Amino acid sequence: MLALVMHEAPRLVTDYPVPSRAPGEALIKVLCAGICDTDLQLARGYMGFRGVLGHEFVGEVVEADDPRWVGKRVVSDINAGCGECADCTQGDGHHCASRSVLGISHRDGCLAEWLVMPEPCLVEVPAGVDDARAVFAEPLAAALHVLDSIPAGEREVIVLGDGKLGLLTALALRGEGLTVTLVGHHARKLAIAQRAGATVALSVDGLARAPVVVEATGCAQGLAEALRLTQPRGTVIVKTTVADPLVVDLAPVVIDELKIVGSRCGDIARALRALSCGAVDPLSVVDARYPLDQADQALACAGAKGTLKVLVEVPR
Amino acid sequence: MLALVMHEAPRLVTDYPVPSRAPGEALIKVLCAGICDTDLQLARGYMGFRGVLGHEFVGEVVEADDPRWVGKRVVSDINAGCGECADCTQGDGHHCASRSVLGISHRDGCLAEWLVMPEPCLVEVPAGVDDARAVFAEPLAAALHVLDSIPAGEREVIVLGDGKLGLLTALALRGEGLTVTLVGHHARKLAIAQRAGATVALSVDGLARAPVVVEATGCAQGLAEALRLTQPRGTVIVKTTVADPLVVDLAPVVIDELKIVGSRCGDIARALRALSCGAVDPLSVVDARYPLDQADQALACAGAKGTLKVLVEVPR
Repeated sequence: MLALVMHEAPRLVTDYPVPSRAPGEALIKVLCAGICDTDLQLARGYMGFRGVLGHEFVGEVVEADDPRWVGKRVVSDINAGCGECADCTQGDGHHCASRSVLGISHRDGCLAEWLVMPEPCLVEVPAGVDDARAVFAEPLAAALHVLDSIPAGEREVIVLGDGKLGLLTALALRGEGLTVTLVGHHARKLAIAQRAGATVALSVDGLARAPVVVEATGCAQGLAEALRLTQPRGTVIVKTTVADPLVVDLAPVVIDELKIVGSRCGDIARALRALSCGAVDPLSVVDARYPLDQADQALACAGAKGTLKVLVEVPR
Repeated sequence: MLALVMHEAPRLVTDYPVPSRAPGEALIKVLCAGICDTDLQLARGYMGFRGVLGHEFVGEVVEADDPRWVGKRVVSDINAGCGECADCTQGDGHHCASRSVLGISHRDGCLAEWLVMPEPCLVEVPAGVDDARAVFAEPLAAALHVLDSIPAGEREVIVLGDGKLGLLTALALRGEGLTVTLVGHHARKLAIAQRAGATVALSVDGLARAPVVVEATGCAQGLAEALRLTQPRGTVIVKTTVADPLVVDLAPVVIDELKIVGSRCGDIARALRALSCGAVDPLSVVDARYPLDQADQALACAGAKGTLKVLVEVPR
């Protein structure tokens, strides 16, 4: 099959084997996939990933143990846990020590014609949510997961970074009615958040400190700025995953009793609800669409400075 | 009066002016003071502090606006807030932007014969708590404040660092009945925690990850070790204040969704209750006692590698 495969460098191949379905897994035909900054990092060698890239998709189930899945349009939690440990049985399995993660760790991803995922990871997409919106379920879930780290009662958030995730986080928090200030470097991107009711700024200069700051700059330096912008006893929610180590001055964290909280994947079903009711419309974030047989060009486009979301479509 | 004063270096002087009491403040005769690692840092130039060192004390009120204070034996919250901002009126004033802090910021400290503090900061010491224990109210409050950052339901804590604060934190958490593992480099200090029921270890090798880790090593490198020892979605509580910037690998914080929480001063009244009921007996942490006219030697002793708490006594 066609697939964008990371080996020593990312490469589009036509003869990648169609994945074979293990018991409990569904075979899914990919309809549309999205490219995320994590894919770009993995394509540069981050975490030593080998295999098919991509973890944002909407697809159609072709085969499954449970016949009710067949023919359904689905999105998926990207974490495939063991199903047996405490994290899987009592939690969401996102921290299962032996999990695989679609297109990120020990599992081929979705920039291909087909993929397999365990059936418990799947969520059916409502008819009213089209493919180009449904493909945002995974990154929107990650954006909405910020809400799980915002202390009860806080309604005012600064988001640092107007890249894909920062922008989507601003839209997600606006969809929940929070007061959002998005700080970025691109007037075109900030305008998207502004249309959704966010206050925007091209610089942190003159901004008042906020009780909650989301760090989504994608740069190691972003945290230092986030810490400076956070009120005493406030919370910095960190979304940036970069390979670079980070230099932080610890003293203000202790003196101001700040909280720094790492935030990764969210609840896919919650994201679908936000898409379905129109609380968040992510289409304004799409910059380009490519067919799967140009997925290598799609990756290059996504990696160009300033590009927002690039989608990869698979002909039905 | 006699006072240990930081100017370019710390110096014992005999002619420091007795502090004059502002409205709302109490004039207090110091009975006993303790030396903390923060004092040692300030004496090396940290934060550019100038004035009388010291912030751990028990004393007797000599003059106050409210005559009921006079003659009372007291300890004090070290943060003197403005009394008018939201943090002072709705919170504890520990983060009031215009606060002064006893012996740390814009306020002369307690390594002297006399000091002044606002009356609302004072807490009366119960008769059953002697001076050598009462002087621990401030550091024990800081140690017990760790409890405020432990998520509900968690009972298992690793404490990194067997210095004064790490050891006191281990004793404080044991006093609350938590399961504590103290990791340090000194068998003599670890034995103190062991007698209080803590598990102790000379190295992190082979330790299972815990849901809560307290970083009290006093070294910038301690946080990296604390992060490695924390379970996914767990909490690292940071007590170390050092001037050195710190290099952290951010990726595990995001991937494991860790929380890093700075923790500073606690509730002095809570500490007095723990001392009064015997839940914590800090006397085992005292390594030396000096009279005030040898406070410079006391500081040198406290700064020698391996020394635990040094007390400075003022003759009555």
